[in-house]
Amino acid sequence: MEVTLRETERIDDLQRNNLKIIQNPSKFCFGMDAVLLSGFADVRAGERAIDLGTGTGIIPLLLSAKTAGDHFTGLEIQPGMAEMASRSVEMNNLSAKVTIDCGDIREATLKYGASSFDVVTSNPPYMIGGHGLQNPESAKAIARHEVKCTLDDIVRETASLLVPHGRCYFVHRPFRLVDLFASMRKYGVEPKRMRLVYPYADREPNMVLVEGARSGKPRLAVEKPLVVYKDDGTYTDEIVNIYSF
Amino acid sequence: MEVTLRETERIDDLQRNNLKIIQNPSKFCFGMDAVLLSGFADVRAGERAIDLGTGTGIIPLLLSAKTAGDHFTGLEIQPGMAEMASRSVEMNNLSAKVTIDCGDIREATLKYGASSFDVVTSNPPYMIGGHGLQNPESAKAIARHEVKCTLDDIVRETASLLVPHGRCYFVHRPFRLVDLFASMRKYGVEPKRMRLVYPYADREPNMVLVEGARSGKPRLAVEKPLVVYKDDGTYTDEIVNIYSF
Repeated sequence: MEVTLRETERIDDLQRNNLKIIQNPSKFCFGMDAVLLSGFADVRAGERAIDLGTGTGIIPLLLSAKTAGDHFTGLEIQPGMAEMASRSVEMNNLSAKVTIDCGDIREATLKYGASSFDVVTSNPPYMIGGHGLQNPESAKAIARHEVKCTLDDIVRETASLLVPHGRCYFVHRPFRLVDLFASMRKYGVEPKRMRLVYPYADREPNMVLVEGARSGKPRLAVEKPLVVYKDDGTYTDEIVNIYSF
Repeated sequence: MEVTLRETERIDDLQRNNLKIIQNPSKFCFGMDAVLLSGFADVRAGERAIDLGTGTGIIPLLLSAKTAGDHFTGLEIQPGMAEMASRSVEMNNLSAKVTIDCGDIREATLKYGASSFDVVTSNPPYMIGGHGLQNPESAKAIARHEVKCTLDDIVRETASLLVPHGRCYFVHRPFRLVDLFASMRKYGVEPKRMRLVYPYADREPNMVLVEGARSGKPRLAVEKPLVVYKDDGTYTDEIVNIYSF
């Protein structure tokens, strides 16, 4: 399918299923966090999933290839980013399975209705607030800082978007783990599974993956470490497997 | 110093500073969790610490040797256990530095007064409730199950016993991590530092160490993994170091 590329945009090959994605390095490119979240999340046959703050659309695109899920929605507040993600969907001929919408996470339940998804994913902005940012309207600032919404907003909308016993998957920085758990409990989405991502086996973790269940019973399964690099600086087998689906 | 041993009691050498401890294998012996907590906790010169649910007294005894703290109190609800721990203190000639009291954690603030300690430690019972226990009054049941107090009771008393900005140190099972964080936030003791203990580098963690600060600002430092065994089944260097102080 023909695709329009705007200035400074490029097409990246996702190395599997012929999936490709349009990115704009001058704005924001997806990171390993999004890829690891797509490996951690589980969307089952017949299920509908939504990704809150989808950016390039990387998570719905990967989940459409990796899981048995029925339909994938990506919600993105920045019109230019949402439009670019839509072109990626078209380019991959996935328009029947993946929809990109432009809208505000804080109004997601108004837009889609309560209990309208089986699965919610999100790779939220990690940094608290947007104080001191030189350009709080830049795409990078919006992706990384809580300029347009807070973690609490995302968890609140997640809880109301999910069907009873629906599941959610988040990736975040470990330093926000208490905030994440607190918001999840507050809105009735119980953390059920957690995995810490360690760049090296003997370093501090720099990401955390968390699965929650709406109205789940309290009991957290903490999984074995997910280590990114071997001592020699090459990817571990598990990371290679996640990247190659 | 002469010491009285009761039937089925034995004396164990703590391998450093000539420290010894009386234990009763038919009741309850301290585990690695207590030793790792004593390596994770920090008690500074001039500070007063209390251990809630001290059992054999292992944590105050180890902390009196490992840290610069001024005074160490151990609170234990079971009279026989508290009396045995007191004999361990006397046997080590530590009566000026370590005090064992018999009492109920749920009434600790009534007993000692609010804001009376700089540091609180606890290795609480891990299991929720005591339903179905054959003998809920046995020493093992009380040490392992929430028969006499809940995690929430312990955190509530911790918060009120601590001076402003005082610190607390807990060891628990990872499956209770959300409960622990939730109780800490509820009572204003912010989790500031966390370390997961993995039996082997590629297995699920079986313990978690958490430091909190009364009225601390939200920001959690998650530390590198604490791995117990090397692949060959021998202790890692770090565990050897913690055991030998």
